[in-house]
Amino acid sequence: DRQLYSAQHDEILAGATTDIYFIRTMEILEHMNLAHTEVVAEIFARKPGMLAGVQEVFNILADKNVEIWSLKEGETFEPKETIIRIKGSYDEFGKFETVILGCLASSSAWATAARECKEACNGKQLLCFGARHVHPAVAPVMERAALVGGADNASCILGAKLFGKEPSGTVPHAAFLIAGDTVAVAKAYDESMPVSDPRIILIDTFKDEAEEAVRVAEFLGDKLYGIRLDTPSERGGVTPALVEEVKARLCKAGFPHVKIIVSGGLYPEKIRQLAQAGVDSFGVGSYISGAHPIDMTMDIKEVNGKPIAKRGRIPGIIDNPKLIKVK
Amino acid sequence: DRQLYSAQHDEILAGATTDIYFIRTMEILEHMNLAHTEVVAEIFARKPGMLAGVQEVFNILADKNVEIWSLKEGETFEPKETIIRIKGSYDEFGKFETVILGCLASSSAWATAARECKEACNGKQLLCFGARHVHPAVAPVMERAALVGGADNASCILGAKLFGKEPSGTVPHAAFLIAGDTVAVAKAYDESMPVSDPRIILIDTFKDEAEEAVRVAEFLGDKLYGIRLDTPSERGGVTPALVEEVKARLCKAGFPHVKIIVSGGLYPEKIRQLAQAGVDSFGVGSYISGAHPIDMTMDIKEVNGKPIAKRGRIPGIIDNPKLIKVK
Amino acid sequence: DRQLYSAQHDEILAGATTDIYFIRTMEILEHMNLAHTEVVAEIFARKPGMLAGVQEVFNILADKNVEIWSLKEGETFEPKETIIRIKGSYDEFGKFETVILGCLASSSAWATAARECKEACNGKQLLCFGARHVHPAVAPVMERAALVGGADNASCILGAKLFGKEPSGTVPHAAFLIAGDTVAVAKAYDESMPVSDPRIILIDTFKDEAEEAVRVAEFLGDKLYGIRLDTPSERGGVTPALVEEVKARLCKAGFPHVKIIVSGGLYPEKIRQLAQAGVDSFGVGSYISGAHPIDMTMDIKEVNGKPIAKRGRIPGIIDNPKLIKVK
Amino acid sequence: DRQLYSAQHDEILAGATTDIYFIRTMEILEHMNLAHTEVVAEIFARKPGMLAGVQEVFNILADKNVEIWSLKEGETFEPKETIIRIKGSYDEFGKFETVILGCLASSSAWATAARECKEACNGKQLLCFGARHVHPAVAPVMERAALVGGADNASCILGAKLFGKEPSGTVPHAAFLIAGDTVAVAKAYDESMPVSDPRIILIDTFKDEAEEAVRVAEFLGDKLYGIRLDTPSERGGVTPALVEEVKARLCKAGFPHVKIIVSGGLYPEKIRQLAQAGVDSFGVGSYISGAHPIDMTMDIKEVNGKPIAKRGRIPGIIDNPKLIKVK
Amino acid sequence: DRQLYSAQHDEILAGATTDIYFIRTMEILEHMNLAHTEVVAEIFARKPGMLAGVQEVFNILADKNVEIWSLKEGETFEPKETIIRIKGSYDEFGKFETVILGCLASSSAWATAARECKEACNGKQLLCFGARHVHPAVAPVMERAALVGGADNASCILGAKLFGKEPSGTVPHAAFLIAGDTVAVAKAYDESMPVSDPRIILIDTFKDEAEEAVRVAEFLGDKLYGIRLDTPSERGGVTPALVEEVKARLCKAGFPHVKIIVSGGLYPEKIRQLAQAGVDSFGVGSYISGAHPIDMTMDIKEVNGKPIAKRGRIPGIIDNPKLIKVK
Amino acid sequence: DRQLYSAQHDEILAGATTDIYFIRTMEILEHMNLAHTEVVAEIFARKPGMLAGVQEVFNILADKNVEIWSLKEGETFEPKETIIRIKGSYDEFGKFETVILGCLASSSAWATAARECKEACNGKQLLCFGARHVHPAVAPVMERAALVGGADNASCILGAKLFGKEPSGTVPHAAFLIAGDTVAVAKAYDESMPVSDPRIILIDTFKDEAEEAVRVAEFLGDKLYGIRLDTPSERGGVTPALVEEVKARLCKAGFPHVKIIVSGGLYPEKIRQLAQAGVDSFGVGSYISGAHPIDMTMDIKEVNGKPIAKRGRIPGIIDNPKLIKVK
Ligand SMILES: [Zn+2]
Ligand SMILES: [Zn+2]
Ligand SMILES: [Zn+2]
Ligand SMILES: [Zn+2]
Ligand SMILES: [Zn+2]
Ligand SMILES: [Zn+2]
Ligand SMILES: [Zn+2]
Ligand SMILES: [Zn+2]
Ligand SMILES: [Zn+2]
Ligand SMILES: [Zn+2]
Ligand SMILES: [Zn+2]
Ligand SMILES: [Zn+2]
Repeated sequence: DRQLYSAQHDEILAGATTDIYFIRTMEILEHMNLAHTEVVAEIFARKPGMLAGVQEVFNILADKNVEIWSLKEGETFEPKETIIRIKGSYDEFGKFETVILGCLASSSAWATAARECKEACNGKQLLCFGARHVHPAVAPVMERAALVGGADNASCILGAKLFGKEPSGTVPHAAFLIAGDTVAVAKAYDESMPVSDPRIILIDTFKDEAEEAVRVAEFLGDKLYGIRLDTPSERGGVTPALVEEVKARLCKAGFPHVKIIVSGGLYPEKIRQLAQAGVDSFGVGSYISGAHPIDMTMDIKEVNGKPIAKRGRIPGIIDNPKLIKVK
Repeated sequence: DRQLYSAQHDEILAGATTDIYFIRTMEILEHMNLAHTEVVAEIFARKPGMLAGVQEVFNILADKNVEIWSLKEGETFEPKETIIRIKGSYDEFGKFETVILGCLASSSAWATAARECKEACNGKQLLCFGARHVHPAVAPVMERAALVGGADNASCILGAKLFGKEPSGTVPHAAFLIAGDTVAVAKAYDESMPVSDPRIILIDTFKDEAEEAVRVAEFLGDKLYGIRLDTPSERGGVTPALVEEVKARLCKAGFPHVKIIVSGGLYPEKIRQLAQAGVDSFGVGSYISGAHPIDMTMDIKEVNGKPIAKRGRIPGIIDNPKLIKVK
Repeated sequence: DRQLYSAQHDEILAGATTDIYFIRTMEILEHMNLAHTEVVAEIFARKPGMLAGVQEVFNILADKNVEIWSLKEGETFEPKETIIRIKGSYDEFGKFETVILGCLASSSAWATAARECKEACNGKQLLCFGARHVHPAVAPVMERAALVGGADNASCILGAKLFGKEPSGTVPHAAFLIAGDTVAVAKAYDESMPVSDPRIILIDTFKDEAEEAVRVAEFLGDKLYGIRLDTPSERGGVTPALVEEVKARLCKAGFPHVKIIVSGGLYPEKIRQLAQAGVDSFGVGSYISGAHPIDMTMDIKEVNGKPIAKRGRIPGIIDNPKLIKVK
Repeated sequence: DRQLYSAQHDEILAGATTDIYFIRTMEILEHMNLAHTEVVAEIFARKPGMLAGVQEVFNILADKNVEIWSLKEGETFEPKETIIRIKGSYDEFGKFETVILGCLASSSAWATAARECKEACNGKQLLCFGARHVHPAVAPVMERAALVGGADNASCILGAKLFGKEPSGTVPHAAFLIAGDTVAVAKAYDESMPVSDPRIILIDTFKDEAEEAVRVAEFLGDKLYGIRLDTPSERGGVTPALVEEVKARLCKAGFPHVKIIVSGGLYPEKIRQLAQAGVDSFGVGSYISGAHPIDMTMDIKEVNGKPIAKRGRIPGIIDNPKLIKVK
Repeated sequence: DRQLYSAQHDEILAGATTDIYFIRTMEILEHMNLAHTEVVAEIFARKPGMLAGVQEVFNILADKNVEIWSLKEGETFEPKETIIRIKGSYDEFGKFETVILGCLASSSAWATAARECKEACNGKQLLCFGARHVHPAVAPVMERAALVGGADNASCILGAKLFGKEPSGTVPHAAFLIAGDTVAVAKAYDESMPVSDPRIILIDTFKDEAEEAVRVAEFLGDKLYGIRLDTPSERGGVTPALVEEVKARLCKAGFPHVKIIVSGGLYPEKIRQLAQAGVDSFGVGSYISGAHPIDMTMDIKEVNGKPIAKRGRIPGIIDNPKLIKVK
Repeated sequence: DRQLYSAQHDEILAGATTDIYFIRTMEILEHMNLAHTEVVAEIFARKPGMLAGVQEVFNILADKNVEIWSLKEGETFEPKETIIRIKGSYDEFGKFETVILGCLASSSAWATAARECKEACNGKQLLCFGARHVHPAVAPVMERAALVGGADNASCILGAKLFGKEPSGTVPHAAFLIAGDTVAVAKAYDESMPVSDPRIILIDTFKDEAEEAVRVAEFLGDKLYGIRLDTPSERGGVTPALVEEVKARLCKAGFPHVKIIVSGGLYPEKIRQLAQAGVDSFGVGSYISGAHPIDMTMDIKEVNGKPIAKRGRIPGIIDNPKLIKVK
């Protein structure tokens, strides 16, 4: 009995998630003896962005008899630019339109949002923390796309591994709330984690952020890599002034090298300001995970070698010198 | 070798998509001998909405020794209202925080957006066409959530079935482009589909919408159930004036009963206007599929029976008479 | 018995359209023995623009014993700049103030608006189609002023002739509606018009614009000079995307040289965008015909050689080196 | 040799101001033997307003063999409401489309603007002073339309007479500037005008308005009907405070019954405020004369009894119970 | 040698702070033998407000031979309403115009701002803390005016006494910074202040506000009257959420009766929100002290019994039934 | 018995205007034996501005055993920049915090506003006329601060003298209203004032400004230095057009050298426009007197040599190389 609503790989590859009307289409074309019509289809978007998810598209079409031209994973595209071109018999790939477009739409949006944040970081670190905002089935898709976009690491275990990285994150409030004291958790963390693991301690669970940061620094001394500020909106969120104050107090207490990691409600403009204030690392969740999909469209542009298009489009192939033939 | 980046059910249930820091948390708590601490956690959102995805949460926790109180699937919630409460040993469910929140966040957003559209329909039909805008792994999750929100049907095969419905959709442009003529496809559709299948023909692929609608009506006569208008933005999109003109011309041609289905760039305000102009059915994609997740938060509110909360929250349980004990 | 409310030339020259208070003024001045007072009057506007209508002013004063300095027809002026100066006995011209200012106000506005459109055309053709938006008595005044402003031609027969041009326009919807088919009319046009007359066919009366354009091109072949797009607002109006699609489809059908003429709701910004999209000719109506008059003021600035002005103005003549003595 | 660019009545009735393309239309239809096609045409606007100019339309069609249904002069209409319907052979009236629409467009705009001002007057008097802002040929058309809209009188001699009224106005600045003193002109005015003529003196040419008003009142005593305030924008224009002060000073000087007439830059909102401040009469020019034409459209809706329409419109007659058959 | 720039009482009463031009005026009028002209002068404002400072005006004119009518201290006035009327020989009071208007302008603004805040308090307490934002010479004037406006108390010693109240305030950050610990200061406060003095402790100098509030409550127990929240903008200021959290934590710790006093950047809208969140007392500084003066004007309205006014005003007395004769 | 509410110098220096809580602070610190704690306090603002009032601060602390570093009177500062630093035993100066900050807050705002106006004057003269908008006790403080900011002179007698200038102003409306005629007053002024006193006559009390200006110029001839325009808002205020017209009429009347002084509702943007129109002198009142205080904050930054700060600030001294040691 089904535990989760998400589709499994075999279901997807079998076409169970496709729009019913592509099934209808095949039945009608069969009826008209047109199922094997040779077509060229092109995929484009109406907004600019960074492309992600292409390997999934290639995998879906791996065993189909089609030719494919494509932009590269991580390449940027403009509105109406041809992103992928598929040539072959319509029945080879037609019913996968829904699936193919779906693989590109969200991933490209996530990669594009991560790119925006990474540029705002101005050289500082960007970590993706957004897995909790999307269905677990696509948490790894999202975090992998964020890494394509330029994030330095991701916290979702599977997502990081898909990109060939070790997942990265630090201890959340739950641990502190259960332990009842920040320094106690810092101690346990230091005792139980490998020495190579950077000690980053979340310090806004109980006490004033600067006070707790100094307490933890005094306890861990040089072993403290950084502290994480996650001040909630009820308390004003993390402001440049707060960052400057915490750094100043750590400095005055003799700990100038403690790094500052910030998370919570971050978006590019805020990242820019906090980077200037001295933050070293940004954990972004919602700005990436909630990025509106870059809706993709697949149009048939050639039928039996003849240029064609539906009303509103330009008939025939829209050339794009950046395309590389992948199949 | 992995074909798709999405997580399979077993991976999710095993915790592979969780944030790495919940694994850390467990290790640290074990080290402190606090892993079995009895806690109460509460889930809430910062925006109002309609809840969806709860059964997935129950399934994930099905074999865990916890008590669960929850709002019902499809119930509405206010900002900061307790949506789900979980009580038990932290190690029973703690590492599933990411997964649980993720199951609720997107589904609730999709259900809420569908609800908005359904209300705008003012009694007319709402179909969800958005599968192509999300990763195929969550296309069924999205369309099921849309059905929870009030959509009358969905086009994603698996999505519709998860709600106990037959998927619904009509022939897309591809069929017409390959066939080369709208009436030819209408003929094939009529010949090959079961008689009980309503004949709905997309009529804006080649010709002026009104002209094509009358051509198809003249061909199919009474067998024509409805025509679909999907005028692209390059041609002005579907306007109330266009709908009125098409209906008037069909009427004058002797076909007053042909239903009007509209798709393409629809959102609540536009749906309201078109419903007034006489549209019978709305196919909505992007407004639902692109709905920004309603980010959910899980807070620990009690530790060993003692009211507690991180800075910024109110300590202890936030009561909600609407909650029902489900486990 | 009077058929129309507009004033005939003899009525105007006789002063029947003047404000009654200028008649009063003369009676009072006569009573005070001041009717022959030598005055200098100056005309200016509060907004910048292009001057038109001066010859009418000169004609009205042709038989009056006055001296006149004036800017030239088609010359631009700034706010408060002296446009015309009249010197003479007040009774020679005083009662014509209303008429003189009226000749300049609308014509200058129409010329200025046409100039704006012509600049937006960026080298393409501008035709004035606005006669239907003003009283027939001034349709020729308006279209002549548009030609002064830079329009390449006008459709009002008398208006064009006043500027020494042949009127220009193409067949309107009425012909097509009566004939019932666009190609039929194209055929009749080609058969009945002189060969030197460019064949321009309106193609949005019945069918999809691109479809109809290709039909007409296929029928007339090389004899087709251009097609006119006049898509109504109910169907999205004429967009750059529509223009590009029509050109592309004509090109693909083997008719790359067919010119594109556009009309309907045009204004400078839209003209700029459509010129970039490849339009060759613009038919502008309402933007020119509806231009708000550039209200002109006539002030007496010298009385018997003494500098004078009413409150709010600077006494005496406001010099302007651009003025040329015309009488 | 032509003195003015405006068209004479015979030129208009002969069709010289029509768009050239209606001539083309007739030639083509003749060629196709369709000139005598029986059609029904309907006129409508896209904005709401008050109708004016219908008698000119009737006069133009007086000797044509057509049936006409029409709203009444001065009746209000909504967007897309049928204003006039003409039925007959196309060649009877087709080429007058430009002329007919032109007769209605500006006049309806002028009447509508005058109506707005009259309502803002809240029972006070409205005079139309706008003749100087339009070509003299249409000054009477404009002022007559303003009277239709509710103005109480107009200053253009011919315009007022066309509505059956005596023109109305008061002495302008020119008389005062030539005489050199306001009271001197008041004296001459009183000596030379019929006793029944209300003495209204413009008092802002030379001195402070209140000072001059009292001077004139002291001179004319009970014979003074009213004073006119026309303060230019360089001096702040006419404000409610100025009106109250002038009335108060006249009152204190023993002249409480002197009426206040205001002119210069008036528009509905300003009229409302000034009416509240005690103004008795408003002279409006530019707000009426510069009203943007209410562009009218004439569509063929029936050809040989068959409902028809160009793309974007509803085929067939759009019924309107307010229409009255006039021919 | 002068220590401060402010004027002493004797200097003010002697006229040293008056505008030099009133001295000139007296010299000129003496020269013209008009110094003893009997005049009536009226004072009004252009904005609405609450009147304060009248007693100072009466005191300044106490030994002058004039009659005075006035609104009462604390009474509200509308724009242009007569606030004070003075009748007498011009030389009796003329040179005090500057001083009289100055006494009313700021005080009325401060009283009006305090009134706004008090209404926003919705029954809660309002304390004025603004002395530090104005020159010490007028700190008592400002705080007295705030009390007139409805403040419940003020912190400036002299200001409170002028209204017959004991000044009110609580310990500022300086004491805590010097002592180094909040509870240590609370202890000293409790030991050294009279028992009747409510113990209100500022708790945001060092630690998290809620943490410190509970620490202090645990130390003082029932002796703690209230805590003061003054969170700086660098830390998000005082938000309704912070107030609710502090109250909840105090409640959970067994101290539900501790009152909440808030200060820092308060203004009416913020006061309304915080009052709803449970705040008991508001300390307002800048919103009251920085209120823009309600500029007052004194016009001569009668000279030797004759109604008169400068241009722009209405001649003669503007009656006001609310005026009471005070001298 | 007290005549005025303002504080006398001895009261201020004795601390009667301080906030009661600084008295409390001393009592508590005494109790804790911490009254003689050595501290360093720093003063800063949150907005940029020009500093004024420092000498009063120095005078207040003249007999206290403290060290003081300070910016100079008239020097500009940025937000958060250290303006003054005080080092010493807390009981030497602690209770004067309110007084010290108050001396700086308003004066700096007034100086800053005057600076803005002076820059807008673009080389023309700036006079401060604002004494009537503040309590007489601080009228000299305000006008002295305006002079620091760059005003060329002030009208408050004491204020001007505090800066070492003779006060400057011209005859107000009162004199003219009592005399009944502008020229009569000009005559008296000329007869009674020293020859070295520039004759500046206010000319908008009774008549049209230009008319009166010429009347006065014709009477005083070369002895007229300038005329003052103070047109009230009820009459449109002083506009650039009015200034140009008055200058032109004076010029035409043979008085091109008469200077133009303007007052009434002036602010920087208006000053800039009027300076361009030819005004020579600007009398500003409300823009300067009503400037919102630049609220100053005093923080303790060192206690017994140890860097310290309250939450929200950076611990320790904030260095500023512009500071000069004054004590
Ligand atoms: Zn095949
Ligand atoms: Zn957090
Ligand atoms: Zn356990
Ligand atoms: Zn479509
Ligand atoms: Zn003459
Ligand atoms: Zn058209
Ligand atoms: Zn005929
Ligand atoms: Zn005027
Ligand atoms: Zn006296
Ligand atoms: Zn504070
Ligand atoms: Zn000491
Ligand atoms: Zn004045």
